[in-house]
Amino acid sequence: MPQLIKEKKSFLVEGFISVDGHALPNFKIGYETYGELAADTDNAILICHYFSGTSHCSGKYHPDSETPGYWDNFIGPGKAIDTTKYFVIAVDSLTNVCANDPLVKTVGPHAIDPSTGEPFGDSFPILRVDDWVAVQKRVIESFGVATLKAIAGPSGGSVQAATWAANYPDSVERIIMAISPGHYMNPWILAMLKSWIVPIKLDANWNHGNYYNGPLPIDGLRCSIELIQVMGMGFGNLESLYDRRWADNSEDPAQSIDNEFEVEKAFHEQSGIKAQIFDANCLIYTVKAFQLYDLRNKLENIKAKVLLLPASSDMIFPPSLSYTTKEAMESVGIDVELYEIEGTGGHYDGLSEIHQHQDKVVAFLGK
Amino acid sequence: MPQLIKEKKSFLVEGFISVDGHALPNFKIGYETYGELAADTDNAILICHYFSGTSHCSGKYHPDSETPGYWDNFIGPGKAIDTTKYFVIAVDSLTNVCANDPLVKTVGPHAIDPSTGEPFGDSFPILRVDDWVAVQKRVIESFGVATLKAIAGPSGGSVQAATWAANYPDSVERIIMAISPGHYMNPWILAMLKSWIVPIKLDANWNHGNYYNGPLPIDGLRCSIELIQVMGMGFGNLESLYDRRWADNSEDPAQSIDNEFEVEKAFHEQSGIKAQIFDANCLIYTVKAFQLYDLRNKLENIKAKVLLLPASSDMIFPPSLSYTTKEAMESVGIDVELYEIEGTGGHYDGLSEIHQHQDKVVAFLGK
Repeated sequence: MPQLIKEKKSFLVEGFISVDGHALPNFKIGYETYGELAADTDNAILICHYFSGTSHCSGKYHPDSETPGYWDNFIGPGKAIDTTKYFVIAVDSLTNVCANDPLVKTVGPHAIDPSTGEPFGDSFPILRVDDWVAVQKRVIESFGVATLKAIAGPSGGSVQAATWAANYPDSVERIIMAISPGHYMNPWILAMLKSWIVPIKLDANWNHGNYYNGPLPIDGLRCSIELIQVMGMGFGNLESLYDRRWADNSEDPAQSIDNEFEVEKAFHEQSGIKAQIFDANCLIYTVKAFQLYDLRNKLENIKAKVLLLPASSDMIFPPSLSYTTKEAMESVGIDVELYEIEGTGGHYDGLSEIHQHQDKVVAFLGK
Repeated sequence: MPQLIKEKKSFLVEGFISVDGHALPNFKIGYETYGELAADTDNAILICHYFSGTSHCSGKYHPDSETPGYWDNFIGPGKAIDTTKYFVIAVDSLTNVCANDPLVKTVGPHAIDPSTGEPFGDSFPILRVDDWVAVQKRVIESFGVATLKAIAGPSGGSVQAATWAANYPDSVERIIMAISPGHYMNPWILAMLKSWIVPIKLDANWNHGNYYNGPLPIDGLRCSIELIQVMGMGFGNLESLYDRRWADNSEDPAQSIDNEFEVEKAFHEQSGIKAQIFDANCLIYTVKAFQLYDLRNKLENIKAKVLLLPASSDMIFPPSLSYTTKEAMESVGIDVELYEIEGTGGHYDGLSEIHQHQDKVVAFLGK
């Protein structure tokens, strides 16, 4: 199959007022599309990204790019979400964690407040996932699409998919919730999400979110990133990648509290790369948006069919959460299917192993 | 059954040299005993505590103490480890995390270096779990006990039990490894343990471990404690305790990045209490000791029978690790039994739900 070559586009959002009543300055939001929209617009599928993801879900920006979009094994010509058949749209989230990635277009605490000419910092209003999906709806409608064939997303993307289905029940026919927390964030998840931002707040450079004119809270941000990575990983891939090798053959970890194993060094190096494109405040605001997610009183709004795809070794959102949600959804008459993704890669199996259920997804999209 | 009333005792360790050749100044180590030693000394059971635990495994120090020792549902008159039948000994670990608990007696970076009259700080040598168990062996032998009926421990306690069985195969007949990482720390666990100490190192007050004459790295330590607690918890108990209630009824979490849910506040309050008795350096040294644990090349030394008791919802050491270890042990001829503790309490079910397998443990101790 030919490799998809993608470009980031942007959509101007004007006069946006959040569900909590906060007015935002006009802003551009990034999006990507794949495939062709049918004349009757009935083949559109929206892809929602995970916590620290972007709208780059498939293909490459350049033929020589090292890695393709995060769900390249799932979206593309002849894949589960077949771009020769469907028109796929993906949109950058509001307060996108990768706000410093030049290809990401979003709005958040790093954006310029037109009333001061300075970045918002901690004066930026808290947004909800409801706001993210309201923006996605504008983008969809700009293509003349009134009803989506489906919305699919891994992890935080599944939260957006379910929020869509509850807020706009007549605008989406099916949702695919991979490695999902389910239909609300329970108190353990609230505390886990909180643990991700404490290190940033601990960094003196954070300055309660007002750091854009000074040194960045890089150390706190790297600590936060390492933590999220550890929780997202499974045992399997790390064992083969690093075993228990030392970071430096001449520095025995038993000889100094500073001497590390290779896996520790690798996580730290990776966090350094990500810290260049992550914005610490956007990470905090994104945690807050997800903490506020709770569809327990809106579940009966949902008319879409639901496909839940938890990963068996997931330690962020274990499969039990999907089974709980299946039960809750079925109790209000929602049509739900659930299949576990098998593997030892933890939460990340929801990206790398999603193709296991290609046949189930194809059947679900056709039912 | 009558409530056990316990007191902490101490044992003087003289002329101790670690397995890596580091000489320690003479120090006192804390221990507790339960029940009576038989004349032929064949009824002794050693209990090894978890990461941030102490030798207080059962009973209360005072009749009006709020909480008993951590395995009070497992050790005592008529319980799985029946103190009317067995003589139970438990010993504080070296570099014990609760070094500032006045009832804990240990040695570590907080101890006075006799050569300077100042706390060791980062000049304290790294110790291994092998050193911890060597000290335990001295305590046991001071009672005239040459062979232990069994050693039992949850989590990090199981690491000590297995290290005992590998290092002193003729001195222990059975080991009970509850909520265990298994027979070595795999790279995911190395990275997870590392993530627990990064926040401490991020705290400027830590000063590379030399903080005893200045302000303590309390913020970093609290962040670390909250993280360990989140990872140790399961979904079940938090749901019923906190649901999604706000920390303050007048402070909607949707209105400010500072406004929290009750569960976030609760974790933070609990970390404040623990930070009073934890020593940040001892936590770092204890992480290091566990990171160094690797019995893959010593497994065939073990002669003891093994009982593995993983907890089904454990997200620190998931049951898969115990199954992997069972297979590895059986491949070198070790007699292994494994039963899962069922529940939704996560890692902590290895403490609160251990009594589920009382009958299995009684049978194991008799076989």
